[in-house]
Amino acid sequence: MAERIISADSHVNPPKDLWVSRAPAKLKERAPRVESMEMGDVWMVDQNMAGVIGLDSMAGRKYENFQAMGLTYKDMRPGAYDPAARLADMDQDGVDAEVLYFGGPATHPVKEPELRRFIVHTYNDWMVELAAAAPGRLIALAHLSLFDLDEAIAELQRIAKAGLRGFHMNPFPNDLGLPPLTDPQYDRLWAAIQDTGLPVSFHIMGPRGMAIERLYDPTPGVKEAFISLANISMTELIASLTFTGVLQRFPKLHFVVVESGIGWIPYFLERMDATYQKHRFWTKSVLTEKPSFYWYRQGHATFIEDHSGVALRASAGIGNIMWSTDYPHSDTTWPHSRQVLAEHFVGVPDDERRRIVGANAAQLYRLN
Amino acid sequence: MAERIISADSHVNPPKDLWVSRAPAKLKERAPRVESMEMGDVWMVDQNMAGVIGLDSMAGRKYENFQAMGLTYKDMRPGAYDPAARLADMDQDGVDAEVLYFGGPATHPVKEPELRRFIVHTYNDWMVELAAAAPGRLIALAHLSLFDLDEAIAELQRIAKAGLRGFHMNPFPNDLGLPPLTDPQYDRLWAAIQDTGLPVSFHIMGPRGMAIERLYDPTPGVKEAFISLANISMTELIASLTFTGVLQRFPKLHFVVVESGIGWIPYFLERMDATYQKHRFWTKSVLTEKPSFYWYRQGHATFIEDHSGVALRASAGIGNIMWSTDYPHSDTTWPHSRQVLAEHFVGVPDDERRRIVGANAAQLYRLN
Repeated sequence: MAERIISADSHVNPPKDLWVSRAPAKLKERAPRVESMEMGDVWMVDQNMAGVIGLDSMAGRKYENFQAMGLTYKDMRPGAYDPAARLADMDQDGVDAEVLYFGGPATHPVKEPELRRFIVHTYNDWMVELAAAAPGRLIALAHLSLFDLDEAIAELQRIAKAGLRGFHMNPFPNDLGLPPLTDPQYDRLWAAIQDTGLPVSFHIMGPRGMAIERLYDPTPGVKEAFISLANISMTELIASLTFTGVLQRFPKLHFVVVESGIGWIPYFLERMDATYQKHRFWTKSVLTEKPSFYWYRQGHATFIEDHSGVALRASAGIGNIMWSTDYPHSDTTWPHSRQVLAEHFVGVPDDERRRIVGANAAQLYRLN
Repeated sequence: MAERIISADSHVNPPKDLWVSRAPAKLKERAPRVESMEMGDVWMVDQNMAGVIGLDSMAGRKYENFQAMGLTYKDMRPGAYDPAARLADMDQDGVDAEVLYFGGPATHPVKEPELRRFIVHTYNDWMVELAAAAPGRLIALAHLSLFDLDEAIAELQRIAKAGLRGFHMNPFPNDLGLPPLTDPQYDRLWAAIQDTGLPVSFHIMGPRGMAIERLYDPTPGVKEAFISLANISMTELIASLTFTGVLQRFPKLHFVVVESGIGWIPYFLERMDATYQKHRFWTKSVLTEKPSFYWYRQGHATFIEDHSGVALRASAGIGNIMWSTDYPHSDTTWPHSRQVLAEHFVGVPDDERRRIVGANAAQLYRLN
């Protein structure tokens, strides 16, 4: 079987006027828009900043020219927002398909129902259009807001019917004043997700307990610590979904920790299993199997460059890990992905490589 | 060279009346003491709880009989507090020496200077006495409070002069309202530590951003998530000490992350190095070498059971990782440590095993 290269975590930017051009008159002024400021192009939602053009647009730049802000849409590679240019960039990099996310205003927390619904629906509609622009190559995913579970479930069913292959949610709604995902009130959402057969994705946000502002802290080294720590923070989500029994109660629910890296997963499975083995009696654990059982059955993780993870791939789960380019973000391997893959998979059997670089994603997102 | 088995992280409890028996009259009522409550023996400092007898006293228990509270000193193995009994337990387990920590009132944050100084000095005096009870076998470490740096430096010099081989500090003083350890105000402390030649230890506290109360949260699974996440949280300390340049400015400063586990270290070094490689220009990194350079030169970590870490030991650093029993805490391998070691070191060259199970600790704590 030919090897198919699928990036399980890439990014795309909507047109600057996506929301404004589609907003009803009464939401026009509060709809997401890009404003030019001294710090570059900034996504605004109502009166709030919801994203800065910078590290999300570094594909093709030399590291010496990386910038965290001060950039505009014109400084991006067109592949960051234009589907035709994106496909050309993918061809140059040898990538057959990409699973696509966007943060900014799409994931910005908006409590006011009417504005929120407009933002999420418009974004998801656009993702449906994007997927249609290159079927099987641009795997556009939706976003669901968790402020209203009835609304989230209705939107989930709408995007599933529209043919999207997955969707994203905030892994830590407790940071927004909502109950954590371990709260039983989400059970009806998990049930609805399971019914659609779509995997739910949780993209990294930042280190636990650190505000995003740390990324702009002038103290030397604080920015780099923030960047280094963001990925491994998904341990908290995995531990919570596992130990509170969500994965046990919903055995067909598949979840993806996105951009988490994978080198720490073997350690963490071992740690969770040991915790279960030793502590399950006094904690009155609800689990009937050890934690790693649920991971291997229902968990998925993406990585970009991760030699430790590839070395321990059998423990992380050959079927549970998916490579990605992260295009066009600062961690991207573009346009050297083939070289990066060659370096990572020295000595790895072809069948295992085939699964990790594409077949796992094809199966999860039903791309065949 | 004969193999020496040294636990680089074990625990000891002081006599219940240590502080009360040595307190001056005016501190007698506020001095640390054990009070019998419905929830078992509880360490009190002034009017505050500073520790519950429970998971710290599980050595020799079946997992089915683990308890988080409801226990008293009488329920502990005598080896948990009596030096002679401890040595007998070490002999039974095949352990030659143990590096000893205690939390509870010793590490309890006390702002009031007179009470704080009394608590810390008395504890450290007792550790000097404990070390003298079995030279070369009970490697008792001090604790330093960070509320007053002049006081911390004076106490550091006192315990170094008294012959202790190391000491513990809180890795996250920012959680107590103090500046984080990355603040340059600590530079004179780092300089003083470097002058003593003693390594500084940072024991795991709990997951970042989670209060200790989560360990008693009745929601199913929250306790186990807390336990699983505590160790890997030391990533934040390593990233901070590295990227802010503390390790570069103080090249002879050695630090130990205690009970952190090691299986995630290869991943995290890779992640920090990639962050440095890609982001050092716009962040204006102060580092002249890649982050892993400082780890291999100055970092140390302890683990109990960690097959992933032993598999990737070369990347974690053969000279940087140290095995431990964690006696008598709930994670302890006692009395099966020899069997655990045999299982962990299948196929590992003798010289590497020798270093990881003892020689590294002997060198760090100058036990020869």
